Amino acid sequence: MGAKIRVTVWNEFRHEVKNEKIRAIYPNGMHTAIGEGLLEDGSFEVNYAWLDKDAEHGLGEEVLANTDVLMWWGHTAHGEVKDEIVDRVQKCVQEGMGLIVLHSGHFSKIFRRMLGTTCSLKWREVNEKERIWTIEPAHPIAAGLPEHFELPHTEMYGERFDIPAPKEVVFITWYEGGEVFRSGVTFERGYGRIFYFAPGHETFPIYYDRNIRRVLCNAAKWAAPRIVRSIGCPCVQPLEEIKSKLEE
Amino acid sequence: MGAKIRVTVWNEFRHEVKNEKIRAIYPNGMHTAIGEGLLEDGSFEVNYAWLDKDAEHGLGEEVLANTDVLMWWGHTAHGEVKDEIVDRVQKCVQEGMGLIVLHSGHFSKIFRRMLGTTCSLKWREVNEKERIWTIEPAHPIAAGLPEHFELPHTEMYGERFDIPAPKEVVFITWYEGGEVFRSGVTFERGYGRIFYFAPGHETFPIYYDRNIRRVLCNAAKWAAPRIVRSIGCPCVQPLEEIKSKLEE
Amino acid sequence: MGAKIRVTVWNEFRHEVKNEKIRAIYPNGMHTAIGEGLLEDGSFEVNYAWLDKDAEHGLGEEVLANTDVLMWWGHTAHGEVKDEIVDRVQKCVQEGMGLIVLHSGHFSKIFRRMLGTTCSLKWREVNEKERIWTIEPAHPIAAGLPEHFELPHTEMYGERFDIPAPKEVVFITWYEGGEVFRSGVTFERGYGRIFYFAPGHETFPIYYDRNIRRVLCNAAKWAAPRIVRSIGCPCVQPLEEIKSKLEE
Amino acid sequence: MGAKIRVTVWNEFRHEVKNEKIRAIYPNGMHTAIGEGLLEDGSFEVNYAWLDKDAEHGLGEEVLANTDVLMWWGHTAHGEVKDEIVDRVQKCVQEGMGLIVLHSGHFSKIFRRMLGTTCSLKWREVNEKERIWTIEPAHPIAAGLPEHFELPHTEMYGERFDIPAPKEVVFITWYEGGEVFRSGVTFERGYGRIFYFAPGHETFPIYYDRNIRRVLCNAAKWAAPRIVRSIGCPCVQPLEEIKSKLEE
Repeated sequence: MGAKIRVTVWNEFRHEVKNEKIRAIYPNGMHTAIGEGLLEDGSFEVNYAWLDKDAEHGLGEEVLANTDVLMWWGHTAHGEVKDEIVDRVQKCVQEGMGLIVLHSGHFSKIFRRMLGTTCSLKWREVNEKERIWTIEPAHPIAAGLPEHFELPHTEMYGERFDIPAPKEVVFITWYEGGEVFRSGVTFERGYGRIFYFAPGHETFPIYYDRNIRRVLCNAAKWAAPRIVRSIGCPCVQPLEEIKSKLEE
Repeated sequence: MGAKIRVTVWNEFRHEVKNEKIRAIYPNGMHTAIGEGLLEDGSFEVNYAWLDKDAEHGLGEEVLANTDVLMWWGHTAHGEVKDEIVDRVQKCVQEGMGLIVLHSGHFSKIFRRMLGTTCSLKWREVNEKERIWTIEPAHPIAAGLPEHFELPHTEMYGERFDIPAPKEVVFITWYEGGEVFRSGVTFERGYGRIFYFAPGHETFPIYYDRNIRRVLCNAAKWAAPRIVRSIGCPCVQPLEEIKSKLEE
Repeated sequence: MGAKIRVTVWNEFRHEVKNEKIRAIYPNGMHTAIGEGLLEDGSFEVNYAWLDKDAEHGLGEEVLANTDVLMWWGHTAHGEVKDEIVDRVQKCVQEGMGLIVLHSGHFSKIFRRMLGTTCSLKWREVNEKERIWTIEPAHPIAAGLPEHFELPHTEMYGERFDIPAPKEVVFITWYEGGEVFRSGVTFERGYGRIFYFAPGHETFPIYYDRNIRRVLCNAAKWAAPRIVRSIGCPCVQPLEEIKSKLEE
Repeated sequence: MGAKIRVTVWNEFRHEVKNEKIRAIYPNGMHTAIGEGLLEDGSFEVNYAWLDKDAEHGLGEEVLANTDVLMWWGHTAHGEVKDEIVDRVQKCVQEGMGLIVLHSGHFSKIFRRMLGTTCSLKWREVNEKERIWTIEPAHPIAAGLPEHFELPHTEMYGERFDIPAPKEVVFITWYEGGEVFRSGVTFERGYGRIFYFAPGHETFPIYYDRNIRRVLCNAAKWAAPRIVRSIGCPCVQPLEEIKSKLEE
């Protein structure tokens, strides 16, 4: 059996501190509920980081050098994430690190940075039902999942989702109130793989759900680096046999 | 006949000022040679802007509000382009403005901002021959072009080109010295269309070439906005008939 | 103004003959209702063809040679369409003719031939509501359409739709009964453009709907050929300057 | 360690029988040279099949039921492959079997069937050099391969290659004589993965080359099924809570 995949779960970790109801659902922060789901699988080593952990939001050079896949949950404090840390994360993704962006992370600096679009969407909070349809059952991120599964109460995220056309649309969500959403989508940037997954509103116990945990485990395996390599812009020599001609 | 497409050709305009040999080829700047090719077509109104034109690099709010398609040539001074101007251009592209990035513009802030990758490549200057193959003859950008055309002397830009997988690969270049390059590629970001076109090294009279001019005219027509619309993130109401249930 | 786009609307035309209720909705066949919507636009010349029109289903060589865009509605008699006619249509699409496949045409020989997949889906007939969301508002097929529009009664076509990943997902449908569907999708094969559009069940007056007609007009304009050209497999000569070396 | 991946290497196996020079290179057929390369890797079980093996070209129901990945080399006798066998293979690919099409297999019935296009290209036989560039170094099919590698003598296959836009362009080839080619491309159809790889002309010892063998091993691992599942077109029930309303 190969080495474990090293996942760093990053959480803004403000809601759980400030809001009693949310804390009741996630007493140790959403990140630990996400991490618990990863650890059950047995394939991962899990590290936690959050906005106020240290001066680098828990994302120092060494942490990232030891991270295969970074998960990102943020919401109210996207603006407090320092630009130099976003630069650092972007470089790591370009060089091969996987990135999994969760729910309100659609508006995070790092997601918008990787995609170049506004990442806007429609939204509504009325505790409605969500049905997630598996569009690509043969995709590794859909492994072991049924053709659809439900969340009884959710925040609605609706189209148009302002993202570049994804590489793959793995899931599309149906909402009780009348909207649809490309809720599980993949991208590649540089050597890194990116997965965005919409479910995960802080007021519902979504990260304890079996299917949601299955998606996150699958995604972390899928996003683990195939290569990690720096990217240069070298001046190169022509074919040997053409050199003399070109130097004339 | 419809209104003309309003193109702003942006040029760094430093090489032509500082370097006598380059000035001999483009006495009034590359932008005017590019603009001349557009004007011949009869479909465009052309405006010029450059790095040192004014405090906003010639890209004030009003200029951009009256631009359908922005062409971008830069090389040695990417870092001098102000971030707030890049922000402004990015927003315009997201809202529908076309963007055509030329040659060494692959390393411009705006191109990297739209794509999220390093946009690195291999390069070499030995005056070698380039053969540009039309991969998608039915694409509007390839209209009227032969199955391949040549530039006798060119700078080599070679793979791997660190860009996200393009929406469309319209042209692939063959170089005498042994490299290949996806030299004409399209992207979409928000409502805006983006085309990158590799030929255009400052030391060769490439922007006077018939085929190159044809590509740029085609690309400007293709990139002209279909809609121009601001992008918000609205809270929306559910279907009327589900409201009472959701409010229970 | 340019020449009109020549659209041939092909209809199986069996339901309307055999079933009184359907005939009440489409007394002259669905094809004429579709054609009427096209003619209102002013951009099209419309020709009609149907399964029993003649020995070639109304799709003789000359008809196809004078067709820019072929629309296809079939349902109960896909198997009666002769293979040699399907071959002929496929060749035309490869050489540049546009193809618009409607509703139950997802199971037509020609659609499956172009895509290589089974084109299967889930279905249900309970007169439920359908909400069609515009996913790519800047796509020419979405021109002039609202961010969503509704059909009060429809047949449900649900995911997973067994198609190759589309070039573009223009529309996604929400159904009252809990499903989603990529209801407006584009493909390219050879020089030809293909659009599949799901709405159009024979028991509802869908082809009289304003928005549906707008989609079909937009699609026919989008699918009109950019080039029409036969496709060969030629033996070609190498670069002149390399010939002597290669002949050694 | 998991079970071995079961690869069936299918070869037309006519050139080697009829042509002494080709038999000198591949005395037991190209299929065995390909299979030898797979067996070296240790991850595969290899089965061989060929056109004249039996009445089903060696591709009986049971053989395919025990095949994870099918490799296909054909050239002069595409027309002799029976349509019912092509139907059978197509169904297997749709249901999850991997398919790797080699060199002149671009014109095989099965490849054209899966893609819907003519699969035409330009060609030339002058023993020229080929340089294969790795466009997506992080793709599993490129694992362990250098940024470019060469074949000293090859048949030229040049653009435009009439295929649908691939899911991924893994390799692009440069030819000494002036052409380029998308020489390693992926597709997905149903649950099956498809890889086309251009090198493999029968008059050169290409299937003994280290890099070529690496590509084929990588591709066979990549194409191994994630799921194998039949594809139906079921009538389904709506959401429980909407049933009463829809039945009104």
